[in-house]
Amino acid sequence: MRELVHPSSYVHPNAKLEENVEIGPFCIIHENVILKKGCKVDAYCELGVKTPLSNGSPLVIGENSIIRSHAVFYESSHFGDKLVTGHRVSVRENTFAGKNLQIGTLSDLQGDTMIGDYVRFHSNVHIGKRCTIGNFVWIFPYVVLTNDPHPPSNILRGVTVNDFAVIATMSVILPGVTIGEGALVAAHSAVKSDVEPEMVYSGSPAIKICPAGKIKLQDGTRRPAYPWNKHFFRGYPVEVIDEWNSNHE
Amino acid sequence: MRELVHPSSYVHPNAKLEENVEIGPFCIIHENVILKKGCKVDAYCELGVKTPLSNGSPLVIGENSIIRSHAVFYESSHFGDKLVTGHRVSVRENTFAGKNLQIGTLSDLQGDTMIGDYVRFHSNVHIGKRCTIGNFVWIFPYVVLTNDPHPPSNILRGVTVNDFAVIATMSVILPGVTIGEGALVAAHSAVKSDVEPEMVYSGSPAIKICPAGKIKLQDGTRRPAYPWNKHFFRGYPVEVIDEWNSNHE
Amino acid sequence: MRELVHPSSYVHPNAKLEENVEIGPFCIIHENVILKKGCKVDAYCELGVKTPLSNGSPLVIGENSIIRSHAVFYESSHFGDKLVTGHRVSVRENTFAGKNLQIGTLSDLQGDTMIGDYVRFHSNVHIGKRCTIGNFVWIFPYVVLTNDPHPPSNILRGVTVNDFAVIATMSVILPGVTIGEGALVAAHSAVKSDVEPEMVYSGSPAIKICPAGKIKLQDGTRRPAYPWNKHFFRGYPVEVIDEWNSNHE
Repeated sequence: MRELVHPSSYVHPNAKLEENVEIGPFCIIHENVILKKGCKVDAYCELGVKTPLSNGSPLVIGENSIIRSHAVFYESSHFGDKLVTGHRVSVRENTFAGKNLQIGTLSDLQGDTMIGDYVRFHSNVHIGKRCTIGNFVWIFPYVVLTNDPHPPSNILRGVTVNDFAVIATMSVILPGVTIGEGALVAAHSAVKSDVEPEMVYSGSPAIKICPAGKIKLQDGTRRPAYPWNKHFFRGYPVEVIDEWNSNHE
Repeated sequence: MRELVHPSSYVHPNAKLEENVEIGPFCIIHENVILKKGCKVDAYCELGVKTPLSNGSPLVIGENSIIRSHAVFYESSHFGDKLVTGHRVSVRENTFAGKNLQIGTLSDLQGDTMIGDYVRFHSNVHIGKRCTIGNFVWIFPYVVLTNDPHPPSNILRGVTVNDFAVIATMSVILPGVTIGEGALVAAHSAVKSDVEPEMVYSGSPAIKICPAGKIKLQDGTRRPAYPWNKHFFRGYPVEVIDEWNSNHE
Repeated sequence: MRELVHPSSYVHPNAKLEENVEIGPFCIIHENVILKKGCKVDAYCELGVKTPLSNGSPLVIGENSIIRSHAVFYESSHFGDKLVTGHRVSVRENTFAGKNLQIGTLSDLQGDTMIGDYVRFHSNVHIGKRCTIGNFVWIFPYVVLTNDPHPPSNILRGVTVNDFAVIATMSVILPGVTIGEGALVAAHSAVKSDVEPEMVYSGSPAIKICPAGKIKLQDGTRRPAYPWNKHFFRGYPVEVIDEWNSNHE
């Protein structure tokens, strides 16, 4: 099933491409890679880069994923079905993600990270090593999750982001911080201590502002803007939306 | 006129390359692209990426433009003459820009954006959808123009930046904000409400500091540093500078 | 000694590749380049880009360096031995660096810069023109060193960072500022005036907080975290560590 590989690309004979995998021009697919059926890899991507920091396991990309151009993925990471990336993403070893992760253009995942289902990273997100990210999390452009409490050192304390939390543009989350479920970190914040669930934090250092539900939708209805999954459904499958709706009753 | 295409590149036979267009190595020029005369496209660029979000119109690059290496441009955008880009720029559909736009290395234009003439984006600028940018605007590194007042949601309120405004390094402009003509947003600011013309704003949240004309040039003359077009002319054509000088009289 | 050049790559016949230089797929090595022995250049790199701003001297990469994929280096820069880069780094002309510089993924060095020995730039660091960086400096992700005191203008005042200084994530250093030896700039700071040696600065604008030595290592010992070279040795050669230890006595 190699007829969908562009003739300018190099695919190692041991790489495992399932049916209907498409590989665009100028790609390099190394040996230790499994691309499940229906994956589409655009131009200039290099998948399965070898590293001494890997455990030897392959890079696995789930079914029907789309990897846009100029991506670099190392070996020893695992993505569920329907991964979607923007351009120029970098993903290091030991990144384990559930289904339908979206990684925006220029994002940089440093590896040693656990990521749940249906997570969205917008453009230019930096995820330091040892972070743990729940389900349905949103992280917006130029957000950095850090890990070293007194750089440089050998102590790495990753950030934990719980389900449905939202981190807005250009915020820094300091090492070891936990962002509570459904919380909102406002744009341009520096978060130095834990964030309570369903609360808004803002500032540098970020302080608690109000319950997230106090923010009103600017759509004329003045319904609460949070929890966001009461009004925002784009890109989620019907079964997920149905479950959300049943929980809200 | 395809003799200036590097033999390693792929140019779709329907792409329209006017005279003296040069295409460097390892490029991909898709079908729905018009490169006007004298354009130079460096290595590893992909132009005219298809998207269901396009209206079917081509990517048009004006005369004598320079697109540096590793760029990604989608179809359905239009640039005036003398576009100049740095490396690794990403430009999505429905971006409409006047003449002599400069887009710095790593900048990411998300599309659905109107941009005037002679605009300068420095490195690593992020322009969210639905922004409107005037003429002679300057935007410096790591600035983000946002658009969603309560992310994630379906409400998009772009930022408006008026003529001659300057946004300095690592500032975030919140959704729906208007930056007045000739205003200066200082570095590392978070702008949450409208900025008056010809004023300096700074801080997080940004507040009004003083008239921009109060900032003195550090060149020994102590002339006002703003309006900047009284002393800074590099890269503008003679007819523009002449017009500026006549307006200043 | 061209047998280690991937057949898909273009190496100008005048480029000087010393013994055991390896060039990965889809690379472009221009004429004005010297790669010293043992260098390894990964895929999609373009080295020696011509520019009218160069002085005509070659790009020189020291022995046993590793340049990871998608890099762009201009001519007229010089790197000591054991340069190591991440992916997608951009380095402009007239950058002069000592030995064992590390440049993280997505970093953007604008040129006209002096850099000492054993400097570490993490991911996505932006070094404006005219900066001067000492030895053993650490700069973390999304830090920007600026240079124009009233942008846009013709006055460029670079930043100076002295030996052993550390600049943490997403800080901006304003033009002309000097960061003292062994100082620490905390994350998400905007530094507008000089930083004293061995002090911690934080905030926007950054203010002096305390001596760096007051920060304790979170490893159970509660030893001081600074100077960091009393406890952090990873990646430095034995002779350097020996010298540090003898100085500490």
